[in-house]
Amino acid sequence: MLEFCLVGAGFIGPVHAANIAAHPRATLRCVVDLDTAAAARVAEAHKARVTTLDAALADPRVGAVVICTPAHTHAELITRAAWAGKAVFCEKPIDLDLDRVAACEGVLAETGVPFCIGFNRRFDPSHAALRAAVAAGEIGRPEMLVITSRDPEISPPDYVAQMPYGIFTDTMIHDFDMARWIMADEPAEVYARASALMDAAANPHRDPDTAMVVLTLRNGALVHINSSFRAVYGYDQRIEAFGSAGMLISRNAEKTLLERYTADRVSRDVPPYFFIQRYREAFAAELEAFVTAVETGMSPAVNAEDGRRALAIAQAAVESAKSGQPVTLAG
Amino acid sequence: MLEFCLVGAGFIGPVHAANIAAHPRATLRCVVDLDTAAAARVAEAHKARVTTLDAALADPRVGAVVICTPAHTHAELITRAAWAGKAVFCEKPIDLDLDRVAACEGVLAETGVPFCIGFNRRFDPSHAALRAAVAAGEIGRPEMLVITSRDPEISPPDYVAQMPYGIFTDTMIHDFDMARWIMADEPAEVYARASALMDAAANPHRDPDTAMVVLTLRNGALVHINSSFRAVYGYDQRIEAFGSAGMLISRNAEKTLLERYTADRVSRDVPPYFFIQRYREAFAAELEAFVTAVETGMSPAVNAEDGRRALAIAQAAVESAKSGQPVTLAG
Amino acid sequence: MLEFCLVGAGFIGPVHAANIAAHPRATLRCVVDLDTAAAARVAEAHKARVTTLDAALADPRVGAVVICTPAHTHAELITRAAWAGKAVFCEKPIDLDLDRVAACEGVLAETGVPFCIGFNRRFDPSHAALRAAVAAGEIGRPEMLVITSRDPEISPPDYVAQMPYGIFTDTMIHDFDMARWIMADEPAEVYARASALMDAAANPHRDPDTAMVVLTLRNGALVHINSSFRAVYGYDQRIEAFGSAGMLISRNAEKTLLERYTADRVSRDVPPYFFIQRYREAFAAELEAFVTAVETGMSPAVNAEDGRRALAIAQAAVESAKSGQPVTLAG
Amino acid sequence: MLEFCLVGAGFIGPVHAANIAAHPRATLRCVVDLDTAAAARVAEAHKARVTTLDAALADPRVGAVVICTPAHTHAELITRAAWAGKAVFCEKPIDLDLDRVAACEGVLAETGVPFCIGFNRRFDPSHAALRAAVAAGEIGRPEMLVITSRDPEISPPDYVAQMPYGIFTDTMIHDFDMARWIMADEPAEVYARASALMDAAANPHRDPDTAMVVLTLRNGALVHINSSFRAVYGYDQRIEAFGSAGMLISRNAEKTLLERYTADRVSRDVPPYFFIQRYREAFAAELEAFVTAVETGMSPAVNAEDGRRALAIAQAAVESAKSGQPVTLAG
Repeated sequence: MLEFCLVGAGFIGPVHAANIAAHPRATLRCVVDLDTAAAARVAEAHKARVTTLDAALADPRVGAVVICTPAHTHAELITRAAWAGKAVFCEKPIDLDLDRVAACEGVLAETGVPFCIGFNRRFDPSHAALRAAVAAGEIGRPEMLVITSRDPEISPPDYVAQMPYGIFTDTMIHDFDMARWIMADEPAEVYARASALMDAAANPHRDPDTAMVVLTLRNGALVHINSSFRAVYGYDQRIEAFGSAGMLISRNAEKTLLERYTADRVSRDVPPYFFIQRYREAFAAELEAFVTAVETGMSPAVNAEDGRRALAIAQAAVESAKSGQPVTLAG
Repeated sequence: MLEFCLVGAGFIGPVHAANIAAHPRATLRCVVDLDTAAAARVAEAHKARVTTLDAALADPRVGAVVICTPAHTHAELITRAAWAGKAVFCEKPIDLDLDRVAACEGVLAETGVPFCIGFNRRFDPSHAALRAAVAAGEIGRPEMLVITSRDPEISPPDYVAQMPYGIFTDTMIHDFDMARWIMADEPAEVYARASALMDAAANPHRDPDTAMVVLTLRNGALVHINSSFRAVYGYDQRIEAFGSAGMLISRNAEKTLLERYTADRVSRDVPPYFFIQRYREAFAAELEAFVTAVETGMSPAVNAEDGRRALAIAQAAVESAKSGQPVTLAG
Repeated sequence: MLEFCLVGAGFIGPVHAANIAAHPRATLRCVVDLDTAAAARVAEAHKARVTTLDAALADPRVGAVVICTPAHTHAELITRAAWAGKAVFCEKPIDLDLDRVAACEGVLAETGVPFCIGFNRRFDPSHAALRAAVAAGEIGRPEMLVITSRDPEISPPDYVAQMPYGIFTDTMIHDFDMARWIMADEPAEVYARASALMDAAANPHRDPDTAMVVLTLRNGALVHINSSFRAVYGYDQRIEAFGSAGMLISRNAEKTLLERYTADRVSRDVPPYFFIQRYREAFAAELEAFVTAVETGMSPAVNAEDGRRALAIAQAAVESAKSGQPVTLAG
Repeated sequence: MLEFCLVGAGFIGPVHAANIAAHPRATLRCVVDLDTAAAARVAEAHKARVTTLDAALADPRVGAVVICTPAHTHAELITRAAWAGKAVFCEKPIDLDLDRVAACEGVLAETGVPFCIGFNRRFDPSHAALRAAVAAGEIGRPEMLVITSRDPEISPPDYVAQMPYGIFTDTMIHDFDMARWIMADEPAEVYARASALMDAAANPHRDPDTAMVVLTLRNGALVHINSSFRAVYGYDQRIEAFGSAGMLISRNAEKTLLERYTADRVSRDVPPYFFIQRYREAFAAELEAFVTAVETGMSPAVNAEDGRRALAIAQAAVESAKSGQPVTLAG
């Protein structure tokens, strides 16, 4: 039984807490959050205790730490947990500064603790089946990848202020990881274009809310990603891989299987509203993979290098969107 | 070049006229209709002449007659055209009286003219592909057939008055033909239930407007057909064949390929409104098959026996709906 | 926190056990099964204890009993649990004998314990959305209901021997409940046809493995149900409601959202294999509804009368299939 | 009755010939082609005569000329037909040289003859419905357009040799027209990436066979287009418009409506193989619009400026693909 400490009880934290509680070989031992009321709510729901980070890291029964705090705290938390010998699951990103990411990677290498970065989409059954089919050669040589990745809402203004160009570094970073993972290749060049099309009330900072990217991979294959922060019909998550022998599409989910025929239309339900509903199964599968990795001593499926490489692409996209020029990526 | 006389310029007549005119190996020579204005309109559109039945049957250049008049005139028209040595294409039914149908069959056999009854659905590319797949064994032994066959509107009251229980003898007769054709077997028993659910304004004669049928085939396979006269979303035409090795579904068409995503739904277009739009390709293919049969001297795909057998099932369904008891069909 | 005793650890038992364990306001206290190894496996997975029925019914902390044993034991278990004052959730049927069902209903009325029969499909989000839309008048007056209900496999021969004509009493009984629930009406007449089409190896008892039913409801609406025990493509569960203002279809689920394009086809995944996968969410929602009913003292959504009425329709269908005649249902 | 001369009897010529012949207010009077056998085949099929360009242009009964010859001959043919006072329908492009296009535009302005360039996709019912919905404000402000435009095969080597980078100037030129037409805006910048991924046997000239483009429109909206010359599943033609209030998708067609369920998959037919099948209705509607424009004296829907602007975008895409840099488009 792997005992977890959850650090960060807001947002995605309760999702991980519930998955840990329902997992047959894991339990939630304790919850840490500066907002002690939030920590208490999550702890109570799963019969865990509220504690401090120091206490949790000193507790020999805590085998793993799940980090769901704001991005700028990740690197330090990873470092402390690693030195305490805990397995670490961290929501992306490791950090927004590539030097700090490299420093974290050094600590992880030195301590040798299991580490997994939260690219949850790798664990979605449909995306994973698509990737498996590409890897099995079903579409021959993969030549183009088209990813549609649209959110139903923009983040609150203060969040946007802290993470400008978040459409690349916070949202598309998942898609950059999908591109690397599915195409089994790295981008040689990134071209990005971004616009602020939402009105000032919704997007007071005029941060990009609409963006398109083209990645040119080393082997000549091409990747397109488009994103928006106002898909009124819900969280739009589609991946299309085209190759010399065919095409694969991981389609959008629908809220129900109901179809309605009236005099003027045949209609179905829209996709689930956002990532917590859409990737519910993925979050559970992600945890299962992490627990299994810790138990078996095998390396988790998504490692610190994956976190760093996706971030480097995102930062190149920001640079391209700002300069208007394609940006070459170093090896 | 096969030259046609069209008898009956209303309703489906213009569809056949246009298909004849567009056919590379056919021309429309003349049009006959008691309503000479209607005849003139069709004739003019295709550079044909208006004539009388006597003149048309006496004209040696007329090689084939297409009969689109009201049902009660079919048997006499078939008989006269056959004795005149013309190939005959006739909209269903041959007649509503099985004895008169048998008499017609006798004339057709004696004269040996090519004869085709207008079961247009056999020529729909999707239904035909379904039947071909069943015949090729794709679903193993066919065990169940489910046909959905719904019209968007009820016939006008005077038409209904002339053809009571038309939901069986006028509409489902097509489905009974589909069942025989796809399952390659004959029904041993028919059970039918019908209701008049539309209100008195729409259905003043309280003729059945809603019906369900179960056919038990000789080999034990089962067929279900359901029908209605008020599918508000358009002409609903689906066929589903289930067998020991799989299932085949010929789905509804859609008016366009457009899909609309809004905040509350994902919608597509409804099916085409009625049979002329839905079976446009089928009517053209039906004519092509008839022309080819006449040219080659081969027997047309749908013959008088097919017309008779489908009618016999329809009449048994009427009897069952009236009595409430299943009706056994003779060989 | 409602504490449960699970009676019957095989088949569907572990599904209920896991849902109870994951429920925030329920716990699995104990497990009863003659097969103590099975009981121990389920108990261990959820930190419950193995016990006897007597002990469980005597335990004041047990507030509710879930019955998942073979059908012939249900009536006695319901009776004993009810007299012990426990809330009772029982898999269908209450019994196969209508007199014994009536006796059970008497005990339930006398004891007043909360009782729910396991018609899980009522809790499927898509079927429930369809029923809600019908109830809200979205399709106007409901006129036809078409239910496709096909299993991927036939039950083992010894099970079939104990429950002949199970295609009606064990499988379609769910569909009869759907028909009553969605159409908000009762059948006046049942007509059923059944065939044994599978070969002797798969179906040695020649029990019906293929069936079609037509229900005529009191208000004139018509219902068709078809069923088979060998849908090779998986568990086929579709409901279609047609009315004066439109149509609703609760479609099949798909294993993943992946779509594959190759030179000769565009393909998707088949439906989930069987009911445990297909109705996973429904089983959880069913438990949630039961727990809420017990907590609030409100009557559970599916009661003993629902169990009895669906059984009466199933038995009439058996009679019709045997006699070949439609069977009238008493009020 | 508008009488046509068809110039160019190969490739798309017979499609136009058949549509003219079937049109109620048009006839095919004559056919011109250096390959007189080809001209004769088309003429014979529609009871037209074979003639020379000089004779056709001198014939007062010829009211309109349809130009289907190789691209480099278009400008001269347009010029001659315009000076002869004929209405002109010309397959795209007017020319590959923008100066020659401008000269043609001058002649067309001076002569005032009706002129239409063959951007057939504007007449596809689904694409046209999408554009109408955008224009009607159904998706609010259009913000992104994603066009998938893939051919099932690469052109023969000699054709490729004559038109290098044809993926932009011959194929995507249609998509550039779609982008302008649907978004009702012009691109300010073009970025293109192209690869030669097919092997040397299929693509001996190593001409780009795979390409991605991003257009930045003047108003900030973004357009992505991707193309390939080896979609093994057929002609892939999808358009997706995303806006502040929703999304519209014009989906792929399917060869039939058949759906096949087997143990391992649910499959449908692939799209029609190529443009003649896929855009059959569009070619007929295009002709109808042209005939109506000539009859009414109204300007045809797609004019020379549309031809020039799409070509200018295509040439900028070629330049971007060669240089690796985004290219700014002049007003």
